[in-house]
Amino acid sequence: MNTEYSFSTKYDKFLFGAAYYAEYMPYDRIDTDFSLMKKSGINVIRIAESTWSTHEPREGVFDFSALTAMLDCAVKYDLKVIVGTPTYAIPSWLYHKHPDVLAVTKYGPLLYGSRQLTDLTNKHYLFYAERVTRKMMEICRDSKAVIGYQIDNETRIAGAAGPDIQKKFVEYLKELYPDINDLNREFGLDYWSNRVDSWEDFPDIRGTINGSLSAEYKKFLRKCITDFHKWLADIVREYTFPGQFVTHNFDYEWRNYSHGMLPLVNQPESAASFDIAGCDIYYRSQDDFDGSDISFCCAIARSLKKSPFLVLETHAQGLKARLPYPGQMLQAMYTFASGGATGILYWNWHSIHNSFESYWKGILSHDLLPNRIYDELSSSYTEFTKTVPPSLLAGHGLMPLNDVAIMLDRCSCVGLEEFPFDDTDHTDYNDVVRTYFDGCYELGIHCDVIYPGDDQGRYRLIIIPAMYSVSDETVRSLRSYIENGGHVLMSFKSLFADRNLKIYHDAQPHGITDICGFTYDEFTVPGRAKILFNNGYTATPKYWIELLRTNSETAKVWGRYEHKYWEKYSAVIHQPIGKGSLTYVGAFLEKDDLKPIISKLADTISLDIPGARYPVVARKVSDSNGEKYLFISNYSDSEADFIDEKICPGTIHLSDWDTKIIKM
Amino acid sequence: MNTEYSFSTKYDKFLFGAAYYAEYMPYDRIDTDFSLMKKSGINVIRIAESTWSTHEPREGVFDFSALTAMLDCAVKYDLKVIVGTPTYAIPSWLYHKHPDVLAVTKYGPLLYGSRQLTDLTNKHYLFYAERVTRKMMEICRDSKAVIGYQIDNETRIAGAAGPDIQKKFVEYLKELYPDINDLNREFGLDYWSNRVDSWEDFPDIRGTINGSLSAEYKKFLRKCITDFHKWLADIVREYTFPGQFVTHNFDYEWRNYSHGMLPLVNQPESAASFDIAGCDIYYRSQDDFDGSDISFCCAIARSLKKSPFLVLETHAQGLKARLPYPGQMLQAMYTFASGGATGILYWNWHSIHNSFESYWKGILSHDLLPNRIYDELSSSYTEFTKTVPPSLLAGHGLMPLNDVAIMLDRCSCVGLEEFPFDDTDHTDYNDVVRTYFDGCYELGIHCDVIYPGDDQGRYRLIIIPAMYSVSDETVRSLRSYIENGGHVLMSFKSLFADRNLKIYHDAQPHGITDICGFTYDEFTVPGRAKILFNNGYTATPKYWIELLRTNSETAKVWGRYEHKYWEKYSAVIHQPIGKGSLTYVGAFLEKDDLKPIISKLADTISLDIPGARYPVVARKVSDSNGEKYLFISNYSDSEADFIDEKICPGTIHLSDWDTKIIKM
Amino acid sequence: MNTEYSFSTKYDKFLFGAAYYAEYMPYDRIDTDFSLMKKSGINVIRIAESTWSTHEPREGVFDFSALTAMLDCAVKYDLKVIVGTPTYAIPSWLYHKHPDVLAVTKYGPLLYGSRQLTDLTNKHYLFYAERVTRKMMEICRDSKAVIGYQIDNETRIAGAAGPDIQKKFVEYLKELYPDINDLNREFGLDYWSNRVDSWEDFPDIRGTINGSLSAEYKKFLRKCITDFHKWLADIVREYTFPGQFVTHNFDYEWRNYSHGMLPLVNQPESAASFDIAGCDIYYRSQDDFDGSDISFCCAIARSLKKSPFLVLETHAQGLKARLPYPGQMLQAMYTFASGGATGILYWNWHSIHNSFESYWKGILSHDLLPNRIYDELSSSYTEFTKTVPPSLLAGHGLMPLNDVAIMLDRCSCVGLEEFPFDDTDHTDYNDVVRTYFDGCYELGIHCDVIYPGDDQGRYRLIIIPAMYSVSDETVRSLRSYIENGGHVLMSFKSLFADRNLKIYHDAQPHGITDICGFTYDEFTVPGRAKILFNNGYTATPKYWIELLRTNSETAKVWGRYEHKYWEKYSAVIHQPIGKGSLTYVGAFLEKDDLKPIISKLADTISLDIPGARYPVVARKVSDSNGEKYLFISNYSDSEADFIDEKICPGTIHLSDWDTKIIKM
Repeated sequence: MNTEYSFSTKYDKFLFGAAYYAEYMPYDRIDTDFSLMKKSGINVIRIAESTWSTHEPREGVFDFSALTAMLDCAVKYDLKVIVGTPTYAIPSWLYHKHPDVLAVTKYGPLLYGSRQLTDLTNKHYLFYAERVTRKMMEICRDSKAVIGYQIDNETRIAGAAGPDIQKKFVEYLKELYPDINDLNREFGLDYWSNRVDSWEDFPDIRGTINGSLSAEYKKFLRKCITDFHKWLADIVREYTFPGQFVTHNFDYEWRNYSHGMLPLVNQPESAASFDIAGCDIYYRSQDDFDGSDISFCCAIARSLKKSPFLVLETHAQGLKARLPYPGQMLQAMYTFASGGATGILYWNWHSIHNSFESYWKGILSHDLLPNRIYDELSSSYTEFTKTVPPSLLAGHGLMPLNDVAIMLDRCSCVGLEEFPFDDTDHTDYNDVVRTYFDGCYELGIHCDVIYPGDDQGRYRLIIIPAMYSVSDETVRSLRSYIENGGHVLMSFKSLFADRNLKIYHDAQPHGITDICGFTYDEFTVPGRAKILFNNGYTATPKYWIELLRTNSETAKVWGRYEHKYWEKYSAVIHQPIGKGSLTYVGAFLEKDDLKPIISKLADTISLDIPGARYPVVARKVSDSNGEKYLFISNYSDSEADFIDEKICPGTIHLSDWDTKIIKM
Repeated sequence: MNTEYSFSTKYDKFLFGAAYYAEYMPYDRIDTDFSLMKKSGINVIRIAESTWSTHEPREGVFDFSALTAMLDCAVKYDLKVIVGTPTYAIPSWLYHKHPDVLAVTKYGPLLYGSRQLTDLTNKHYLFYAERVTRKMMEICRDSKAVIGYQIDNETRIAGAAGPDIQKKFVEYLKELYPDINDLNREFGLDYWSNRVDSWEDFPDIRGTINGSLSAEYKKFLRKCITDFHKWLADIVREYTFPGQFVTHNFDYEWRNYSHGMLPLVNQPESAASFDIAGCDIYYRSQDDFDGSDISFCCAIARSLKKSPFLVLETHAQGLKARLPYPGQMLQAMYTFASGGATGILYWNWHSIHNSFESYWKGILSHDLLPNRIYDELSSSYTEFTKTVPPSLLAGHGLMPLNDVAIMLDRCSCVGLEEFPFDDTDHTDYNDVVRTYFDGCYELGIHCDVIYPGDDQGRYRLIIIPAMYSVSDETVRSLRSYIENGGHVLMSFKSLFADRNLKIYHDAQPHGITDICGFTYDEFTVPGRAKILFNNGYTATPKYWIELLRTNSETAKVWGRYEHKYWEKYSAVIHQPIGKGSLTYVGAFLEKDDLKPIISKLADTISLDIPGARYPVVARKVSDSNGEKYLFISNYSDSEADFIDEKICPGTIHLSDWDTKIIKM
Repeated sequence: MNTEYSFSTKYDKFLFGAAYYAEYMPYDRIDTDFSLMKKSGINVIRIAESTWSTHEPREGVFDFSALTAMLDCAVKYDLKVIVGTPTYAIPSWLYHKHPDVLAVTKYGPLLYGSRQLTDLTNKHYLFYAERVTRKMMEICRDSKAVIGYQIDNETRIAGAAGPDIQKKFVEYLKELYPDINDLNREFGLDYWSNRVDSWEDFPDIRGTINGSLSAEYKKFLRKCITDFHKWLADIVREYTFPGQFVTHNFDYEWRNYSHGMLPLVNQPESAASFDIAGCDIYYRSQDDFDGSDISFCCAIARSLKKSPFLVLETHAQGLKARLPYPGQMLQAMYTFASGGATGILYWNWHSIHNSFESYWKGILSHDLLPNRIYDELSSSYTEFTKTVPPSLLAGHGLMPLNDVAIMLDRCSCVGLEEFPFDDTDHTDYNDVVRTYFDGCYELGIHCDVIYPGDDQGRYRLIIIPAMYSVSDETVRSLRSYIENGGHVLMSFKSLFADRNLKIYHDAQPHGITDICGFTYDEFTVPGRAKILFNNGYTATPKYWIELLRTNSETAKVWGRYEHKYWEKYSAVIHQPIGKGSLTYVGAFLEKDDLKPIISKLADTISLDIPGARYPVVARKVSDSNGEKYLFISNYSDSEADFIDEKICPGTIHLSDWDTKIIKM
């Protein structure tokens, strides 16, 4: 068994590969394909995570011939293999025998067909999932090609709310609240006569209108996923050898591309069961390719184990809107690598001829012939390995050198699902996060992602977007961070409710009104209000404005409302506190309206930023020996220059979608 | 038992108060809150209508300690109390024991969680509702603070359509149509093979496509609510003392504010069971505060018992978009009072820290501290009591002096749900009503609301918007009204179908083509058609135009269509009839396009209108002694003047959101 | 029994009539109505297709008095009658006795109320449908008025997916794929673990995400409809006499008007069971009346039996947006006739006073009086019979003389439902079809509709829009057509997948890359790309562009992309092949952007087009003796001229909505 993370020491090489499904091919092509892969520089494949029914076509009848053929041929062509447990898509016979393996949601029982529909706590599912996994591991442990295992894939629990799992939820609540009166009080169940005075009367969670209860159920479902991950990782580890890793393919809130933190999975808690984090990142391409999606998603992936990670999926051709322009695939490689990726695997090798994802295209098109994309990936990878200093790709990989962090919080994300700030529900927590992250990004400020409880001390600035739900412990930790010289940039709707989404009943923002220089108890829609900054710049708030009242002489009002009745209220306040400061933005602002505030704060606290502005983006990284490099990338179809005399003399010229790397 | 309405004689004072829920508070604040209330001028609280589960946490286990504490403390601070029966939100144990208490709708059985989900005809629900109400009444009858009781709250029947209630519907139909052939004929059930020739075969109402049947089921559901109200009011009255009143909190068609007549409840019929009508009015605030929502909703509230009424709920802060500008709360008080309100209760005293309505804020924000809103309400109420002549607030209260009425009809409202005139379903009956009401309002013409069968004689003008469904009796009554000197302004789609929504098969508009000067049998969409008035003004019809053909020499065509093919048809016709007249508008027009027609009609029939035009609004009222006053209000953030030499010499100056009252 | 089509020989006259429902009338009007009909020129009525419950009010109790009264009165006024089987709307007692007659869909069991909700394979439904049909036939066979029967009406199967019909589907699959492995392979069921290795495990089709399986189920449902049609037509034919015809009322994909080919019914296969095709065509009127809807729908109706057909329904007044301008009804008659209609029946005679379609108005309005529409229909029909040469309306009727055909394919239509090219799903197969059809139409090029397998040889040009699914046999046939001198204009997404929607794994377009002059394997969204034609014209592609690479020196690039990265790819290619040519348009283009391409192709292959351009439309037709005529129509509210010296000297002047007919 292997419990030590030993991935980078054994595979001293950047992983470059693709998902492969011999099972989906219209005819046997394994040898042809692996030979083409080898030629292109591909050194790893990822297989088997979706094909349970091929491996166990009938209950208890196992046929791993496709798996074995791929493993054998991988050895022939010296391709490494990451094998996925086939657990996230179940065979038809399992559903037929035990229909209760599929989740019952608030819309009723799910029907068989798609993946990720399983109630992960269902005993029948767990029985068969364990058996097929053990059978598969018995096959795989004999292969020298296998370097690691992926547990399940983009795990979901499908909003499971059938009687069995709801019974488990009640047990979970009993443990948290041995006295049911505490539950009633903390969740405010007296409201609309929702009290539960006997656990037997606990009503079907699917009807609840109580935001605290609803959020707690979501938290419980996330815990079920974490438990499932640990359970399955432990089974797999019974079969692994030292050096083989166990990972998972984490994904993101999806808006037809990877956009935000996923509210459905406690990713850092789940990641504790894995040796290395994996993720899939599908970024906007063509004219929308600006590197921000990759940068943000890599920051999350790094945050899960505070380590480099694997990009287990990204698109080659992808959906039609993502077909990359010439140069964009190489540019994406640089962007992934400088974000901490130690490998990039495309999804997938070939396009699929039937079923559902036929237009989510792979490297090869449906004609299965080498094409522009294949050629460009091959030559790009050659160029990539030539350009990137070997020390950045080897060993423990590189780590970005950021002195700014953005603090994310899943409970706040869910809290703003329950109590949205945009009445139309179109704009949510992740939008707030991205306006800050992307605003910084375009100004040349790169952020790590951290969570409440993480080490804060190494950062000069922590950005806190919409941290609606906060514990007193986190408040204390932030106060201490600031008083010891840290700077915080905090958005509207932060520090408002406790971890049960009970709104704090003291002055807002909770726990800091004695030091932050202001308070407020009124908020409203912007209407015709603008925000006037003291440098004359005017911003347009959206959805939500807080009417801030300063309560300290040291509070500097950076922006106030321009409005007949709200003009006496502040919108943006900067308050020096101890050795640090807090800057508070009391309204939703789009990225471009946030940038002047971020810039002013960067000047005020003298952040060190290379002289690049979007579309030129410069990222500082370090190899494991501490050598520092700068990745300078041009995210545009026009030529651009980078000039920063402090970093290097002269002009660095960049063609369209071009990256240069310099040693600092 | 108290069956006489004696409210105004006993409580010779305007009621000013708030809803209060000790049950929802994060800690015991009753004394603190009541003391703050008392200081602010508040003299009444409304309690207990949503908290059954607190009072009966387990079946048959009663705990009225929260109620008793509030009642006792109310005595201490001399606050009056209105107690609500807790029946509109049921406890979890009741649902657990009898899941059938919740309605089964066309989407299936409802889940427990929200309020107003009950099938009000369910015997289990009725058993437990009666028991908890009697228990509560036994507590309350001992308190001197209680001035009245509220039966249920914003009653709904949740679209109940389970087997039991559908069986009752069939019984109800049998009584209406002892011969089933009459039902088939009147409802046109031969259409698409929908005949029912045996009551046993009566199909599930949830699938019907027959508009007459669908509307009849809605009518039946409204009757169930009326019956429920009477049943529960009778129970409560067993416990009341002379002088205590029984009321209900009626509400309105909701569009994120109180917009129109509620189609779901037969409010005048229900109101017959109560001593005084209560209502909740949530008006548009900030830049959208124009007084029209309050004026319209007050006119409906007055119409229920042809008497003053209580505003049992309105917002203090409310949802974020309603946060009032300075001055708007006082302005709203004047507007409520001049509309006939004898009390205003805010919803609610405090903001709520959990569950669902946490952002529907009360007077106090979540910090529970006195704030701008508290201060402004207190000083506004002081100003209000100083400014409003005491006789207007005492005794039977004031009544507006309107010589125009608008005739509303719930069957027509439902009729146009079944057969919408706007194919997109965005614009409906209540929109037509509001274009007329608001058009008048902005011209200084104030309307009472009346219904078919109401006394018409006291009005000079009756406005009839979209009275799609009409009985021959009502037609006769309108003819007589006109012939005796009354004037009618009638919109498109009036007098079209009978009370079963069977379209009349004679010439349209039904029953008046011999006197009204026109008929029509074609209607269409406006396309590019305009309406050209004979004063040169051009209007833009929407959704629906009727191609009117004059059939009388006395018919005056006020507007005709501007259109290559429809130009020979009339759009607006004014016809003198007997001593009165009928003006018919054969198209949907927005408020601003209606105003020239209303103006011309007002000139033609010499309506007496004070010299105020929106945003200045002048309302005539009378106290119970017949003294007349004029409320002059400025609904804008700019200053404005009122000048009308006939009423008073000189200029009355109004600041923003300002009201002046003068004796006439 | 009558199996020979003998309609035109017996009824040597154009049919002009209306649907009639004595059952829906508020009082007995049969004599009044038939007398009015007779006066107006009406010579046929269509009755009884929706009124089962009137004819069989209780199970086994039959009452055909309404039917008999209509038949008798028809004889009196010499009206011919088409009788519909009442099978598409079931009585309430049948649902009460056998709730399983209604389909169970993916949303659950349907509720009784609407029509077309039946599972047509349900044995109870079939039993009662047969019985009532036989009873009705026994009545009708005695009437001399009956000229034909309509089987059911606009047949649907309501997405039936209950256990019984799914069992039949599995049997159907077993027959197609005796070896279940073939099914797995052809449908790609390995994908996402969807394999079925035992028929017993076949999962509920309602959950499938497999596009091939989903499309196959739709194909199976279409087959059920074809089988039902044959079954019921055979029953009816047991009772018919020589000369009586059996027909069906086919309809179209509906977008608030008849827009496209209906994906739900295999119309040509169904039509094989009928003597003549019938259809209902509801076209856009008023300013949107351009004749294209009628032309397109007539082309489909002609295609079903390659013969003239009956328009069994079209609107008189119709929904409010369709109320015709003066002149438009006559214009529509000419348009129907020149499209091959041998009869026009309006839906319906009278407007309906209750239920659901009360605002889908007939000839008479609700007042049931002669009106503008009645008068105009009468005079129009008189004019029509005077203007149209008798030989065009008699005998086998006229046939349009088109040397262009558009090839439609239901599997491709469904294929693009499963795999849409427009991600928003707003634009689909029928839109592509209509852009080509309408583009041609506006250029004076009139198309027949054909299907794969139909005779192609008589056409100079075949247009193939989005034929996504294609068999090798069809590919061979097209190759042969072209090589023998035919010309093909083909759109993007053609020849991509096989008949099971498995994407071909050779170079695209499948099977013709050796001759067509290009191939491609990349496609994407247009983004900012334009298409630049070599005549300087620029077009704006939408939704989908294919990056075409020429592979032949003879390929003429008519259009290439204007885009920084795609400019080396072609968009429109014209390739001479053998004696013919293929022109391929690799992007979705709106009608106006297609017209320059169509024009150029028409020039290139010297298509013979009369000198009319939209809004003037000229249609060539021939009577059964081969005499040729030209219908020249002006679809606008302005006057217009037709000038074509090759056809006739001088100018033909057309007033608004005017048609002239000239002999060629």
